[in-house]
Amino acid sequence: MRFFSDNAASVCPEVMDAIAAANRVDTAYDGDALSKSLDGAFSDLFGTDVAALWVASGTAANALALAALCPPHGAVVCHRDAHIQNDECGAPEFYTHGAKLFLGEGQGAKLTAAGVADLLAGIRDDVHQTQPAAISITNATEYGLAYTPDEVAAIAEVARARKLGLHMDGARFANAVAHVGCSPADVTWRAGVDALSFGFIKNGGMFAEMLVFFRPDLAAATKYRRKRAGHLLSKGRFAAAQVLAMLEGDLWLRNGRAANDGAARIALAAGTRLIHPVQANEVFLAVAPAEAASLRAQGFDFYDWGPGEARLVVSWNQPAEEIAALATAIAAL
Amino acid sequence: MRFFSDNAASVCPEVMDAIAAANRVDTAYDGDALSKSLDGAFSDLFGTDVAALWVASGTAANALALAALCPPHGAVVCHRDAHIQNDECGAPEFYTHGAKLFLGEGQGAKLTAAGVADLLAGIRDDVHQTQPAAISITNATEYGLAYTPDEVAAIAEVARARKLGLHMDGARFANAVAHVGCSPADVTWRAGVDALSFGFIKNGGMFAEMLVFFRPDLAAATKYRRKRAGHLLSKGRFAAAQVLAMLEGDLWLRNGRAANDGAARIALAAGTRLIHPVQANEVFLAVAPAEAASLRAQGFDFYDWGPGEARLVVSWNQPAEEIAALATAIAAL
Amino acid sequence: MRFFSDNAASVCPEVMDAIAAANRVDTAYDGDALSKSLDGAFSDLFGTDVAALWVASGTAANALALAALCPPHGAVVCHRDAHIQNDECGAPEFYTHGAKLFLGEGQGAKLTAAGVADLLAGIRDDVHQTQPAAISITNATEYGLAYTPDEVAAIAEVARARKLGLHMDGARFANAVAHVGCSPADVTWRAGVDALSFGFIKNGGMFAEMLVFFRPDLAAATKYRRKRAGHLLSKGRFAAAQVLAMLEGDLWLRNGRAANDGAARIALAAGTRLIHPVQANEVFLAVAPAEAASLRAQGFDFYDWGPGEARLVVSWNQPAEEIAALATAIAAL
Amino acid sequence: MRFFSDNAASVCPEVMDAIAAANRVDTAYDGDALSKSLDGAFSDLFGTDVAALWVASGTAANALALAALCPPHGAVVCHRDAHIQNDECGAPEFYTHGAKLFLGEGQGAKLTAAGVADLLAGIRDDVHQTQPAAISITNATEYGLAYTPDEVAAIAEVARARKLGLHMDGARFANAVAHVGCSPADVTWRAGVDALSFGFIKNGGMFAEMLVFFRPDLAAATKYRRKRAGHLLSKGRFAAAQVLAMLEGDLWLRNGRAANDGAARIALAAGTRLIHPVQANEVFLAVAPAEAASLRAQGFDFYDWGPGEARLVVSWNQPAEEIAALATAIAAL
Repeated sequence: MRFFSDNAASVCPEVMDAIAAANRVDTAYDGDALSKSLDGAFSDLFGTDVAALWVASGTAANALALAALCPPHGAVVCHRDAHIQNDECGAPEFYTHGAKLFLGEGQGAKLTAAGVADLLAGIRDDVHQTQPAAISITNATEYGLAYTPDEVAAIAEVARARKLGLHMDGARFANAVAHVGCSPADVTWRAGVDALSFGFIKNGGMFAEMLVFFRPDLAAATKYRRKRAGHLLSKGRFAAAQVLAMLEGDLWLRNGRAANDGAARIALAAGTRLIHPVQANEVFLAVAPAEAASLRAQGFDFYDWGPGEARLVVSWNQPAEEIAALATAIAAL
Repeated sequence: MRFFSDNAASVCPEVMDAIAAANRVDTAYDGDALSKSLDGAFSDLFGTDVAALWVASGTAANALALAALCPPHGAVVCHRDAHIQNDECGAPEFYTHGAKLFLGEGQGAKLTAAGVADLLAGIRDDVHQTQPAAISITNATEYGLAYTPDEVAAIAEVARARKLGLHMDGARFANAVAHVGCSPADVTWRAGVDALSFGFIKNGGMFAEMLVFFRPDLAAATKYRRKRAGHLLSKGRFAAAQVLAMLEGDLWLRNGRAANDGAARIALAAGTRLIHPVQANEVFLAVAPAEAASLRAQGFDFYDWGPGEARLVVSWNQPAEEIAALATAIAAL
Repeated sequence: MRFFSDNAASVCPEVMDAIAAANRVDTAYDGDALSKSLDGAFSDLFGTDVAALWVASGTAANALALAALCPPHGAVVCHRDAHIQNDECGAPEFYTHGAKLFLGEGQGAKLTAAGVADLLAGIRDDVHQTQPAAISITNATEYGLAYTPDEVAAIAEVARARKLGLHMDGARFANAVAHVGCSPADVTWRAGVDALSFGFIKNGGMFAEMLVFFRPDLAAATKYRRKRAGHLLSKGRFAAAQVLAMLEGDLWLRNGRAANDGAARIALAAGTRLIHPVQANEVFLAVAPAEAASLRAQGFDFYDWGPGEARLVVSWNQPAEEIAALATAIAAL
Repeated sequence: MRFFSDNAASVCPEVMDAIAAANRVDTAYDGDALSKSLDGAFSDLFGTDVAALWVASGTAANALALAALCPPHGAVVCHRDAHIQNDECGAPEFYTHGAKLFLGEGQGAKLTAAGVADLLAGIRDDVHQTQPAAISITNATEYGLAYTPDEVAAIAEVARARKLGLHMDGARFANAVAHVGCSPADVTWRAGVDALSFGFIKNGGMFAEMLVFFRPDLAAATKYRRKRAGHLLSKGRFAAAQVLAMLEGDLWLRNGRAANDGAARIALAAGTRLIHPVQANEVFLAVAPAEAASLRAQGFDFYDWGPGEARLVVSWNQPAEEIAALATAIAAL
């Protein structure tokens, strides 16, 4: 019973069907009808004009977004525990051509407006110091916390005061939106987000993530950068198809909700073992090594996340019986 | 009737089946059993130890290969008409961090050993000039010509004499091997190739190309570069599955041969209109604007390729009747 | 008798005196009074508002100028024989983070408006091709030819039509201006130049070249790039001092004229051996190997410049007797 | 009375004389006799074979050293307060093409072997995390502390255990060596340092810093990188001359000692106000705003260094009366 990564989950049937349906002769790259419909589809979803580009991974979406917002001699403020800092092997530095990441603090990998303002205040405004050009937040965070629209807006205000761009790494955007219950617009452009990495792969997709620009002018240069990074897929219609299938009837949101529900059920069983509130599909548990071993002996796979901590991730289609079994096992520890 | 790109073709059924079959819970990234079997599968195919990495596009495969062979302050020798120079928006420069491309000449986008040697002889060996570190050839070339093992070996000898790496862009490797009738080993590592971009997408694949290192030690740093470029796909098993399906029973070779056969039939009809010999699945025709218009009026789609030239590409599953119709239409011009 | 490089020449006494006079305690980097006066001094010289930054080499000036005009995914059009292509070990690629150089043709390393327009016309406007962002011309050219203001203006018109920036590599700007007899403004910003590398080192300076932006807004980001490249010198007052000394009483122009005069005298003796008209301080001669050997045996140092060609460079303070001796020796060949 | 930067100090007479003496016709770049003698001169100083390259700034020396030790996809461990992190506008990221800096802790900007080992232990060995390739220490540190040979050797042992290179930023190397009283060899290569940025400018030089490789093979690629960064100065003989003048009779060490002595005298007066032990030419004082204002009113210039802190730097030729006056003024606070 695998709880170690939602990337390990299978692809949802609607996506498989859409891929099969896209298997016809069509124009290459992003010239096909499906790819060309993405700007419109995402503009509809967000209720504003956006530019929406598929890429083959969340790392590429994040790094392209940052390259659009930050020059090579600039810096991006992010949380010390951010995926872009710790888990992308320097993709932001590669795509931005050497920008720095300035690392902030905050409970549960969540930046706060006050924390960001403090960090920014410590940066001298002279040519000897790298100047910040953007802020990047992860929603849901690396510890499964969701930002409210107000929290995002407060950070955006700090960003605007210093003319910084604001990026949201939404690898688990569906989970975050499902938890907060707001519209996707509320927690993004209405709160001041300029670019969103909108994750689909962890949520039932196969190989397409979306980079959504709420300032559509940022897309022009990004299209060159995407090509030059090898992310202008030759048969892009298959990427577009899976994303469109997930937008259809808000499948993305239902999948996110399903995973959240599973996590919530486990959280209930975990009680005081919870290291962070469970607001998405990730559960962080305090478990002694022997307890972790016991869970594994019962067939549960998961990651150790630092000493005495375990991370358990619920997938969009995690079987109810696996969730129930895990909840029971945790309660019985 | 679309003859403008083999990227427009559909995905072959075996690949679709393999993707469907891979749709189960498995380890993320390249930790799944399918991805882990690739080194072995390609070592078998080539009869030598190789390291084989999937990426999401031929551009990424090429650029990663060049980055493995050429430092930022080095240069890559390629043909003036090479895809890496003209059609990848500077991907080699991006991935190598600013290496130069030195442009050689040769009929049909084919480099020759003598031509490369001449070009190299003109480069002063001092710190003021960028020093070549690699040679890149395209097989089949951008004009559909296939290299013989001897031709490759002659270029490799020039490379070795100056300690340069040798890369082969094999976006249409299947077509080239099918034409020459050699083993894939003969025209690659046995002839001195260090790294091969082995194309599957134009040949019936969906979103996976392979980067094959015949010097497996080159793969170690490349794995970091791949991650950092966003080409370590989260659900890599779907990439591995499609490639393995194409290796099965040499499907890749059969598909390549089928496309070549169609092109050969058209070439026969084209006679003296042929600008280049037809050795792969591309036909370059001398056609007056009115003739091109006439073909289009009959329902044939293709690219103009400079004034008075047309490029027609035959796909792995191009219907025989479309090929016959095109041949008839060309003969009737 | 050294005619192989004006970089081999000594530093002129006014510069030495200015350096000595600057040897006092003062603010570090570019905060001293001398450095702060440069914008004004160059604005006066050019009769318009400019931003003027010292750097330690012409290569740095060129590369920073190009980085200001061309994004990493863009391209710079220059002559096939341009210094930035052949003699800077890829500095433009380094500073621009991987932009391409597109190589044009033209007699004597001189681009023409028509030639540039042709080259640009051949570049498809799609994301697969690197898009040009700037044009760079060298004045005087690598073969010692000077552009007239009209020639520059014609190229600038081509640039503007495609929204490209225009850079002038003026490593021998003094020689070019001295030859044409125009004002420095006429051949630069009035003709449409955006950024000028204004050379002082070959002309009697020691270690300071100037990067002059005629669009002063380009300087802001460049100051960060300069720092990050290690060209914000710790004791910048010594760089500023030497440049200001050369502006004083148009010393730069007198030095350039002196070198030109020497070259003109040699050109007169060379007659039909001249490969290019002599418009600056460089003389390119057709000489057989035995003739070159004979000149060397008489004590003249110079570079071979391709088979049967010699390059002889006259310095700002080349002794008249050396020039006379060389003229006599060439006439006697 | 300026105590805010040793970069503000004047150039020492021996250097001025050497520059004047170098003002003759000679070969360009680093082909002159003086530049060619540097490998030998520094090999003599260090008692081992080294490669020694001049560059125009300490930032360039540091960044080139790191580029020689760390690939674009790697990381450099340094102190949180390191100059390379805070005061070079991202030069390491620029020259390494996007490597990361991992920030360690330690009193007085000094890394410890144990601290580095801890930091390294926290980095997962997988392709998702940037892998460390080098450690960089500053000697004397940014807070004026000097490393003993044993301290360096302990860090080098940690480096070797993980196959990391070791760089020393010696912008104030003279001050550090003068304080510890060891040979320059003891605290560098004998202790395991691979590359040293050997500072001369703060110590009486004008525009030349040295990059010394104790693994001379690292110099080959660095020479291309130096050219491409615009740090291969056209008239390099003037850079070499000043460095050789400072080696002559150990002038570098005498200058360093003189500055240290002045700082020691101030430290004596400062007593418990000292924030860090004074081991070089920098004094960090706890001073209330009113006290700082009082010092300034008496004519002393210095930097505020965080709230309630002042940094006072003594130059190689700071007049004894200025030092005495400052000591008196501090004692009287």
